[in-house]
Amino acid sequence: MTIKPFEESLKKASAKNQSVITLLTDFGNENGFVGVMKGVILQIAPSARIIDVTHDLPPFSISAALFLNEWCYSYFPAGSVHLCIVDPGVGSQRRVLIAELDGHQFAAPDNGLLTPILKRKAAKVYHATNDRYWLDKISNTFHGRDIFSPLAAHLANGVAAAEMGAPLQNPILLHIEPPKINPLSIDCHVRYIDRFGNLITDLDQESYKEWRNHNGCSEKETLVLFQDQRIEGLSRSYAEKNQGEILAVFDGYDRLEIAIAGGNAAATTGLGFDALIKICVTGAE
Amino acid sequence: MTIKPFEESLKKASAKNQSVITLLTDFGNENGFVGVMKGVILQIAPSARIIDVTHDLPPFSISAALFLNEWCYSYFPAGSVHLCIVDPGVGSQRRVLIAELDGHQFAAPDNGLLTPILKRKAAKVYHATNDRYWLDKISNTFHGRDIFSPLAAHLANGVAAAEMGAPLQNPILLHIEPPKINPLSIDCHVRYIDRFGNLITDLDQESYKEWRNHNGCSEKETLVLFQDQRIEGLSRSYAEKNQGEILAVFDGYDRLEIAIAGGNAAATTGLGFDALIKICVTGAE
Amino acid sequence: MTIKPFEESLKKASAKNQSVITLLTDFGNENGFVGVMKGVILQIAPSARIIDVTHDLPPFSISAALFLNEWCYSYFPAGSVHLCIVDPGVGSQRRVLIAELDGHQFAAPDNGLLTPILKRKAAKVYHATNDRYWLDKISNTFHGRDIFSPLAAHLANGVAAAEMGAPLQNPILLHIEPPKINPLSIDCHVRYIDRFGNLITDLDQESYKEWRNHNGCSEKETLVLFQDQRIEGLSRSYAEKNQGEILAVFDGYDRLEIAIAGGNAAATTGLGFDALIKICVTGAE
Repeated sequence: MTIKPFEESLKKASAKNQSVITLLTDFGNENGFVGVMKGVILQIAPSARIIDVTHDLPPFSISAALFLNEWCYSYFPAGSVHLCIVDPGVGSQRRVLIAELDGHQFAAPDNGLLTPILKRKAAKVYHATNDRYWLDKISNTFHGRDIFSPLAAHLANGVAAAEMGAPLQNPILLHIEPPKINPLSIDCHVRYIDRFGNLITDLDQESYKEWRNHNGCSEKETLVLFQDQRIEGLSRSYAEKNQGEILAVFDGYDRLEIAIAGGNAAATTGLGFDALIKICVTGAE
Repeated sequence: MTIKPFEESLKKASAKNQSVITLLTDFGNENGFVGVMKGVILQIAPSARIIDVTHDLPPFSISAALFLNEWCYSYFPAGSVHLCIVDPGVGSQRRVLIAELDGHQFAAPDNGLLTPILKRKAAKVYHATNDRYWLDKISNTFHGRDIFSPLAAHLANGVAAAEMGAPLQNPILLHIEPPKINPLSIDCHVRYIDRFGNLITDLDQESYKEWRNHNGCSEKETLVLFQDQRIEGLSRSYAEKNQGEILAVFDGYDRLEIAIAGGNAAATTGLGFDALIKICVTGAE
Repeated sequence: MTIKPFEESLKKASAKNQSVITLLTDFGNENGFVGVMKGVILQIAPSARIIDVTHDLPPFSISAALFLNEWCYSYFPAGSVHLCIVDPGVGSQRRVLIAELDGHQFAAPDNGLLTPILKRKAAKVYHATNDRYWLDKISNTFHGRDIFSPLAAHLANGVAAAEMGAPLQNPILLHIEPPKINPLSIDCHVRYIDRFGNLITDLDQESYKEWRNHNGCSEKETLVLFQDQRIEGLSRSYAEKNQGEILAVFDGYDRLEIAIAGGNAAATTGLGFDALIKICVTGAE
């Protein structure tokens, strides 16, 4: 499958540095889908740096994609293109989005996956309809290859998003319940579960610190409650606890996380996505 | 392990663009084998672009490797070198092949893996015997590192296949039953099973369209039969069906695929590699 | 998260070739940790070649990391930087090491992971304390991103290890029992288990050959004993045995390995890390 040369796009590419394209999908690494996407990208943008964020998202999990994409993108160089594909609606009429924020570009299906990006005031969003930047033949089931990869490659080359489609007023936005911060308690929610079974919530460290500043609660006096369990005090690291002990810690995602030292908190507690975690001042539960 | 410099090969490399080397193996990603192969490649071809197609093929599955390699290669830029290693005969006297087709090069053990490539009239095949292009020390169990990686790196640098061995008349070719197309029915076969448990057959969309053109059967009137099950009509996308419903769809591989919306068709049906799938005109079963 | 420009480090980078950075962790590929590390690296060392050795080490397994790192590094070009992170002590006071050996550089937590490197006479080791080469904000749980990735990127750019910290006299070294070689027998140990369940020991081929030269034992007369099982004679390749048969072979790691042809030796035998394997001359057991 030779992809048509595209002098104009390549010329833009040679005028700028190697661009980074990140890939975040639920395609897995076993079936060649990701390899083929990279082949398509390299035919259009031969010097792009392609970085896998992950292809092992839980199948069809927009929640997991949404969490990881929001967290990851800002660690990459400005000018990066982020391809995010969890796409249960592939082949239906769902739209293709290009978003821009803080010098980063995103391409994703219009299914809510980009909600945290699109809710930011500075974000711009386009409805990609210009099939000049797609492959010639579009399958019903693999837009990752036929639409998203060529789009990302042309974006990385420097083609403007506005060339690819018009601004969009009504992208699909998911309702994502934010943490509810009361004077003596916080309701937060499990938003991601990592490989070790750690339960990552939506409570970030800054919000927690501010809350403590107002109510005077120390880290040791902080209670973490869920189901019928309680964790007394936050830990500073996994290493603080003995193997098998449950702990709550601000983690590498900079979010409050429920973990079991050397163990699997999700499997042990049975907590899943969206589960409620309550934070309290000791004595105020 | 410093690999001897090879001025002649490097000079060829500097005269051409960065080459792409794709890797398709059953080595897994856990054990460092693939990392070591990339180290060897980068010592010989420092600017090669190395792309993983997959390393998670079912162990020893020549069938899976054969399917993926035939499908994937053409999405990569002409000039790419495709390393395909599923090699149950490593350490025995099995031969090492280099094949050329459509501007692409392939290196693989002579065990049938390249059958679909080699059956094409335009294909050339060489028996790689010139150990000048291998590592100095050849183990019995890891030719991926000792033979195939250096071969691929030198090919990517631009060394001619004919330098590495003589043309071969009798490479091993597997018998692969093609779909049997009758006026009112087609016998096709499961040739690959992807991560989601989707069952991918050998029936491509072009052949199916031609068959319909002859017998006047619509997509809705097409029956898909296997075991004691029947699927009435083809779908255009996974999204057309409700969660848990079985469907037949032309997929991203451009092949007829049996899938379960949001589910795992292989696990649910028990169908495996080579299973027979019958396509019929409604009323003619 | 924009990482501050660092002109001095980048200038060093432009004066040398693209450096290779290898990554060896137990972080998995599912959670974006590795992607984020690569983003950080590319902000500091935009033209570094990043190669994954593996991210699927058994969680917290310093033994597996230690084995793979020692084996892999030398296949990469001199000048490579090897990032090795299995870090149960993250967030505690454990130190950060940079080691140098044979033109390779290593960055790892001070927990014994680098033992085989550090025991070599030519090795140098530094205690990295200069936070100028870290991210501005250091989390308690993700030093892979905050400390190790920027360190590796600056090393790849050409910043000297001595700039990053002072030489260290007492890095943590693990006791690793070497094979015990007697005139008529050898006690060796399982040091790694690969994806296929093959059991890799610490007995290398050179030592075995020397032993045979002294006692006149042929490969066929060599007995391999463990638990209540015995393997009579060594194989030259997996292909020598029938499916399901157990064998002992010098493998791609160049170590004696217990394997089951087409099967899983670890699952079948129940042997694990550190298990004793006895080698005998037939008749002398």
